[in-house]
Amino acid sequence: MVIPSLIQHKRDGKALEPDQWRELIREYTADRVPDYQMSALLMAVVWQGLEPEELTALTDAMIESGDRLQFDGFAQPRVDKHSTGGVGDKVSLLLAPMVSSCGVAVPMMSGRGLGHTGGTLDKLESIAGFRTALSLQETRAQIERLGCAMLGQTPEIAPADKRLYALRDVTGTVESIPLIAASIMSKKMAEGLNGLVLDVKTGSGAFLPEAARAIELAETMIGLGQARGCPTVALLTAMDRPLGRACGNALEVEEAIAGLRGEGPEDLMEVTIALGVEMLLLVGAASDAAAARKQLEATITSGKALEKFAQVIEAQGGNPAVVEDPSVLPQASKVEVYRAPESGMIVRIEPRRIGRAILELGGGRRTIEDEIDPSVGFVIPAKPGQRVRAGEALASVFASDNDGIQIGMDALSEAIVIGEKGMLTPLITHRVTADGVTAL
Amino acid sequence: MVIPSLIQHKRDGKALEPDQWRELIREYTADRVPDYQMSALLMAVVWQGLEPEELTALTDAMIESGDRLQFDGFAQPRVDKHSTGGVGDKVSLLLAPMVSSCGVAVPMMSGRGLGHTGGTLDKLESIAGFRTALSLQETRAQIERLGCAMLGQTPEIAPADKRLYALRDVTGTVESIPLIAASIMSKKMAEGLNGLVLDVKTGSGAFLPEAARAIELAETMIGLGQARGCPTVALLTAMDRPLGRACGNALEVEEAIAGLRGEGPEDLMEVTIALGVEMLLLVGAASDAAAARKQLEATITSGKALEKFAQVIEAQGGNPAVVEDPSVLPQASKVEVYRAPESGMIVRIEPRRIGRAILELGGGRRTIEDEIDPSVGFVIPAKPGQRVRAGEALASVFASDNDGIQIGMDALSEAIVIGEKGMLTPLITHRVTADGVTAL
Repeated sequence: MVIPSLIQHKRDGKALEPDQWRELIREYTADRVPDYQMSALLMAVVWQGLEPEELTALTDAMIESGDRLQFDGFAQPRVDKHSTGGVGDKVSLLLAPMVSSCGVAVPMMSGRGLGHTGGTLDKLESIAGFRTALSLQETRAQIERLGCAMLGQTPEIAPADKRLYALRDVTGTVESIPLIAASIMSKKMAEGLNGLVLDVKTGSGAFLPEAARAIELAETMIGLGQARGCPTVALLTAMDRPLGRACGNALEVEEAIAGLRGEGPEDLMEVTIALGVEMLLLVGAASDAAAARKQLEATITSGKALEKFAQVIEAQGGNPAVVEDPSVLPQASKVEVYRAPESGMIVRIEPRRIGRAILELGGGRRTIEDEIDPSVGFVIPAKPGQRVRAGEALASVFASDNDGIQIGMDALSEAIVIGEKGMLTPLITHRVTADGVTAL
Repeated sequence: MVIPSLIQHKRDGKALEPDQWRELIREYTADRVPDYQMSALLMAVVWQGLEPEELTALTDAMIESGDRLQFDGFAQPRVDKHSTGGVGDKVSLLLAPMVSSCGVAVPMMSGRGLGHTGGTLDKLESIAGFRTALSLQETRAQIERLGCAMLGQTPEIAPADKRLYALRDVTGTVESIPLIAASIMSKKMAEGLNGLVLDVKTGSGAFLPEAARAIELAETMIGLGQARGCPTVALLTAMDRPLGRACGNALEVEEAIAGLRGEGPEDLMEVTIALGVEMLLLVGAASDAAAARKQLEATITSGKALEKFAQVIEAQGGNPAVVEDPSVLPQASKVEVYRAPESGMIVRIEPRRIGRAILELGGGRRTIEDEIDPSVGFVIPAKPGQRVRAGEALASVFASDNDGIQIGMDALSEAIVIGEKGMLTPLITHRVTADGVTAL
C-alpha cells in the first residue's frame, strides 16, 4: 500500500476504496504507518471530506480495531445518549439513572473535558472514589445487576479512534464532520446498543456553532447508526448559553442530584426529559412521547432515579451518601458573588468564556497529565433576556484562592453582556431522524 | 508557540505572521516540532496557499537555516539555470560549459531524479568517478579556476528545505506552487547569484502540466528572486514529449556531448540556446539576444564548451576522455529496436510513461538507497506529428537483460500513440519576466 499516493488521491478530491481505508487503519494501529503521513491524510479529509462509502469503511475499521460490549443472552434493550459537548451540560448524570429506572439498560460510555467543554467522567470523579475505568466484563456484570454503568472508553474499545483522536487534537484536524462522526460512532457502535440518541449542540459554545453544520453532523451520525442496526435520532439543543446554572465538576454533580430530587433548573430538566423520551421511544419502552415523559417524571417523584444513581455510585467505588448530602463533595474554599455592573437586559452569556475560565481555575485539563480541582466553577442563575438592575447578584464564583476569584470575576464580566435588548433562544430547535429534519 | 493553533489558522485560510513562519522553521529544523504537525500544516498550505508575506518569510527562513556560497572579491558575474524537471532534459550538461565559456561563472547546483523525471546529478555520475558532492569551499575554488562547477545541494545549503522536501515527498504535499517556489528559490538564493533563469516545463510530462499554473509558478519564483536582488526570468518549454532523443543517464550524457560538438538534436539545442541567451542577457554579458546567441554558438564551433566540460569532469574526478570517446560510458548489454506497429501519424509520445519505464529498468531511484544502472534507457528519434509506416524503426531500448528489453518495448508501445492526426506543439511558448508574460 503506497501511502503517499493515497494521500494525493484524497488531496485531489477523489475517494479511496473501502479496502484502502480498512488496510490503512489496520496498518496505522499496528504502527506501520507513521503519524506524519496520517496527519497529512487527516488534513486532506478536513479539506475534501469523505464519500459515504469511505466514512462507512473508516468507521467499521475503527470499530474492528478493538472489542465490543457483548450482550448475548441479555434480554433488556440497551440505549445510550451522546452529546457533542457543552458548558454546564450535566444531562448524562440524570439520564442514565432515570432511563435505567424505566427498565431500559444504559451502558453509558463518556469522555473527559475537551477544550472549553466539560466531560462526564471528570464530573463523576469529583465523587471521591468513583471509578470510571471499568473493564468490558465489569460493565456487562454491572449492567446485568443494575441496568446502568457509567464508564470511560476502555482500552479495548476502538483503539484506532483513541490514537487518531490524540493525533487530530495536536494537528488541527478535529473540526471535520466525517471525522467527528466516525470517532463518536466507532465508540458508540461498540457498546452493543439497540438505540442511540444524540444531543447535538448549536450556538456559539458548540464545536459546530451553525445549525446547518450541526444538522449535517447529526445526519451523518444517524446514517452510520442506522446502517449498523442501531436506530439513532438526534435533537439539536442550544449551547449559546450554559445549560442549567452550575458550571464546574462538583457543582454540576450537585445540580444533577438536585435534578434527580425534582429541584433542577427548568432548562436542564427540559433537555434531559426530551432526550430521555427519545431513548425510551427508540427501544419501544413507551407507547408514545407523553407516556415516555410520564415514566421519566415518575422516576424522579418516586425517588427511583436518585436511588439508582446511589447504587451506581456505590457499585463503582464512590460514596453513595452524596445523593443525600451533596456537601460531602469537594468544596471550594472561596466563594464570591458577581453583581450586575449596570442595569439593562442580559444580551448573552458566552459559554466558551465560562468554559475557558473553569480551565483557568484548574477545573479542567490542558494536558493529559493535569490534575483537576473538582471544586471550582460557577453558578449562574441568570439567563439571556432577563432584565437586571445594577448591583443585583447574577452569579457566584467558586475558587481555591483570591487569585481564582479574580479570574472568575473577570471571566463573568466578559461572558455576561448587559445591554439594551436580549432574548433566550429556543432550547430545543430540531429533531433529526433517518426520515428527515423537523424544526421544533 | 502553540503549533495546533497555527495549523488551525492556516487550515481556516488565514495567514500566519512572518515571525511565526521564521520561528516554526527554526523549531522544526531543531527537532522541536514533530513531523506529524509539520505535515498537517503543509497539507493546509497545499489547500489554502500562502500570502506573499508568508512565502517571503518561509523562503528566507529556509535560506537562513544554512550557509551560502560566498563570492566576496570575485569579480565575474554568476548565473544559474533551474528546470522544474522533465524527461530527456539534459540541458544543464550543455549550458554550464557553454555559458561559462562566455566569461560568466556558473555555480550549477542540481538535483537527483524525482518521480518520473531524471536528475542532472544522476546523469553526471554515469561518468565513472565524477564527484558531485563538492563542499562550499571546493565549489568556490573551482569557480575561481574554471568558472564552472556542477554539484549537488551541499549539507550546508538550506537544510530546512532538505528536511521539508523529504517530508513533502512522502506526505502528498509536493504539488503546491508556493512550497515548490520556496524550495527551489531557497537553494538558488544560497548560490550567491547575479541572475537566474528558470526553465518551467508544461504539458503532460511536467509536474504542473497546465500553462496557467506553470506561469503562476514562474511568477512566484521571479518575485522571490527579484526581491532578493537576483534578477530572474523564466521560459516555459514543452514537456508533452521527451526533449531531444536520449532518455536515460549515460545515453543523455552522450547526447549532451554530441550537442557540445554541434551534433545535438534540434529541439535540445533550441532550448539550450534560448536559456543561455537569457543567462547572458541577465548579467549584461551580451548586448542583445542576437549577440548572445552568436557567442553561445561560437563556444560550440570553437570547441571551447566541449573543452570546458572536459575540464570540469577532470576537476571533479571523472575521466575527461569521455568527451572524445563516449563509449567509455557504461554500455547496456542489450539493445533492441522498437518498430511502428501500424502506419499513421504519431499522435503523442508520453514522457511520464518513458520516465516510469526508466525507473522500472533500474535507471532511477524508488528509495534514497537504490543504486542506479546508468546504462539503461531509450533513444527515441521519433516526434509527434511525424508520419510513419508499419515496421519503421521509431526508437531503441537499452537494458541489462531480456526482461528489461520487454519492459522497454511494452513502455514504448504504450507511450508512442499512432493515429490519424498529430502535431508537434511549439517548443518554447512563453517568456516570463518581472514585467509580465509574453507569449512567443
